[in-house]
Amino acid sequence: MTAPTPVPLRSPHLAGAQVAVVGLGLMGGSLAAALKGRRACAAVTGVARRTATVAQALERGCVDSATTDLARGVAAADVVVLAMPVRTIVAALPALGELLAPGTLLMDLGSTKVQIAAAMEALPRHIQVCPAHPMCGKETAGLQEAEPGLYAGSTFVLSPLPRTTPDALALAEELARAVGARPLQLDPQRHDRLAAISSHLPYLLALSLVAAAEDAASEDPLLWELAASGFRDTSRLAASDVAMMLDILMTNPGAIGQAIGRLRQQLDSLEQLLERGDEAALGPILEAAAARRRSLFRAGRLPCSSA
Amino acid sequence: MTAPTPVPLRSPHLAGAQVAVVGLGLMGGSLAAALKGRRACAAVTGVARRTATVAQALERGCVDSATTDLARGVAAADVVVLAMPVRTIVAALPALGELLAPGTLLMDLGSTKVQIAAAMEALPRHIQVCPAHPMCGKETAGLQEAEPGLYAGSTFVLSPLPRTTPDALALAEELARAVGARPLQLDPQRHDRLAAISSHLPYLLALSLVAAAEDAASEDPLLWELAASGFRDTSRLAASDVAMMLDILMTNPGAIGQAIGRLRQQLDSLEQLLERGDEAALGPILEAAAARRRSLFRAGRLPCSSA
Repeated sequence: MTAPTPVPLRSPHLAGAQVAVVGLGLMGGSLAAALKGRRACAAVTGVARRTATVAQALERGCVDSATTDLARGVAAADVVVLAMPVRTIVAALPALGELLAPGTLLMDLGSTKVQIAAAMEALPRHIQVCPAHPMCGKETAGLQEAEPGLYAGSTFVLSPLPRTTPDALALAEELARAVGARPLQLDPQRHDRLAAISSHLPYLLALSLVAAAEDAASEDPLLWELAASGFRDTSRLAASDVAMMLDILMTNPGAIGQAIGRLRQQLDSLEQLLERGDEAALGPILEAAAARRRSLFRAGRLPCSSA
Repeated sequence: MTAPTPVPLRSPHLAGAQVAVVGLGLMGGSLAAALKGRRACAAVTGVARRTATVAQALERGCVDSATTDLARGVAAADVVVLAMPVRTIVAALPALGELLAPGTLLMDLGSTKVQIAAAMEALPRHIQVCPAHPMCGKETAGLQEAEPGLYAGSTFVLSPLPRTTPDALALAEELARAVGARPLQLDPQRHDRLAAISSHLPYLLALSLVAAAEDAASEDPLLWELAASGFRDTSRLAASDVAMMLDILMTNPGAIGQAIGRLRQQLDSLEQLLERGDEAALGPILEAAAARRRSLFRAGRLPCSSA
């Protein structure tokens, strides 16, 4: 049995494409606003659960049209981008297979990729798929937080499947560049392993820090008076949208477990050096981390905006 | 034997006082600039090790006069503020006892308070002392990073000793308020215990995160491409001045060890829930931390500027 010949894309280029963004929160709203603001495609349709969000998206000019009706919103689309929490995407995919026209490119912006890639793999062959994850965001959620510049300068991971055609990948890359991002191909497993360190671990550290401080503050509430900019920035991600973060944690536990293990090794080693007062060993560790952190985020190499 | 009667302050109020700031880095330079900019005292003298820093402080107008000669810089001062790393302060204190005129108020801005308080306790009785620690800063160091608004809205911890007179404490509070901060009295042990959680632990987490990422990146260097705003903010403190941080770690190991233990408990507990996939237990933990973080740092309740 030979693989079926893929159906050609409805629109091989973004300029002529109707783009439907499903989910108008921070990520979807910002993507829609960036595409529309830069006139990157023929038209942007938004799909949201709530009529209030539809109204707000139209009022703010993030979209050309908007609806709460998924079937209607995606019917005429050449490109469909799913911008919901990971497990909402996974749950929505089977039904979407029936709703999209042949040759539609289906993408998503979900924070983990392995489960979404598996669910996309199962879709009918007349749909083109390209899982994706732009590495940007804020700890605040919702359309009111959306901004067209959110993607500028960020890495936009694309995780094409074996079934993804070169044309489909090229269109996905065009969309990433159109919002100011740098496309980067990573297979789903590799994405999830790296994101566990670069993104999910920082969240868990912020969460643990707030929980540890809460614990300490139960003994001495003046603690909160001493929380300054260092605590503020290190704990920022603890304010992240809980539904989104739960989906991330529940769909990437293996890689996150390994990331926690890696972190614990470092913390344990620092603690031992501290107990021994081994300044000669501590100094170079502090220097190396400071040098790395400074080189990563020099002025102008800030990959994403933050609140 | 009764305690000797304390010598009255040379200047009971800030308005008429000559203030000498010893150490013109980020903290000292910002303090001098705030005092001078707000015309809070009669004159500000800066003392720095390097002539280039003296020249820069004068050129930027952070001080009315400046010198590399400690004895000359503090000779006419009514208030002397030490703005160096903790162990530099501890080492400088015995000699300062000989240099200050009777009735001078000696303060410091050191990041830990127990060892400094002990060293100040040993100074001659004709000097007034009030250890202090303003809860603000940036991960960048040096006079070029100084800004007069650095202290605005921050908590300014004062750790008066039993020998500190009410007049001396009142003058120290006046100085804290003059730069826009809120004075808060805490004994040195309590300060160091709370700062271990609110400030030193965030640093160690940022450091551990960068070290864990370095470890992971040695296997897959694409990791750095995925470091976005979440990683950036959670790791910010890892870029802190190493000499300052080493002094903090070496002068507060007990409280920091306890803070690490508290953090590890939280992280271990999260890891176990994750391994079990216990979403019902994870949800409320994530919600509680998000609620606490949002309430701590609402717009307008940002205690300190950050880079």
